[in-house]
Amino acid sequence: MPKFEKHIFICTNQRPQENPRGSCNPNGSGELHQLFKSSLAKRGVKATVRANKAGCLDQCEHGPTVVVYPEAVWYGRVSASDVDDIIEQHIIGSQPVERLRIADSCLNSESCPHKPPR
Amino acid sequence: MPKFEKHIFICTNQRPQENPRGSCNPNGSGELHQLFKSSLAKRGVKATVRANKAGCLDQCEHGPTVVVYPEAVWYGRVSASDVDDIIEQHIIGSQPVERLRIADSCLNSESCPHKPPR
Repeated sequence: MPKFEKHIFICTNQRPQENPRGSCNPNGSGELHQLFKSSLAKRGVKATVRANKAGCLDQCEHGPTVVVYPEAVWYGRVSASDVDDIIEQHIIGSQPVERLRIADSCLNSESCPHKPPR
Repeated sequence: MPKFEKHIFICTNQRPQENPRGSCNPNGSGELHQLFKSSLAKRGVKATVRANKAGCLDQCEHGPTVVVYPEAVWYGRVSASDVDDIIEQHIIGSQPVERLRIADSCLNSESCPHKPPR
């Protein structure tokens, strides 16, 4: 098993509450990252799939954000109650969770309608 | 440009000096991440390539470690003087820098000869 079959990056960036771009980890607890880790461990796939802390993934308007590589599937507005769905459907079942995906038209886009005005 | 063409994750994990697994960011400065960022900015590719802070990537024996997705190319023992080579040869030129790659036989391997004895 030379590489991770899937590598999940969970944004744990914390910003002040008043920042207009929001914060993926508002209370600094890293809870989402911990939930991904424990969900993988529970299913016995920790050796082949890694849940990794990441700094700002720069899709803040859609946070909390998560990206899964190598397939580059992006998720937004991920909450604690979504973790098991992502693990079961996507990581184990290879079917991305469509309801959580960030639209391609929003990714890295200056014209994303969710971005706050400058 | 819906997704990053390349997404570079630089381990910024800091451990105490005496930890046998070592530390990818021993003085906590995050210098390597900053160098990747500025090297991308200098070449005008910041919009399509992201240099991202990452928590522990779990290849600590080869640190400082960096992984480039979506191609899942892993680099080890990356120093400040290697950053421009990775950007020029791999990110711009699409040729991974072979001298820095972590061997597949070492990645996620319990039998990696570089791991300290338990």
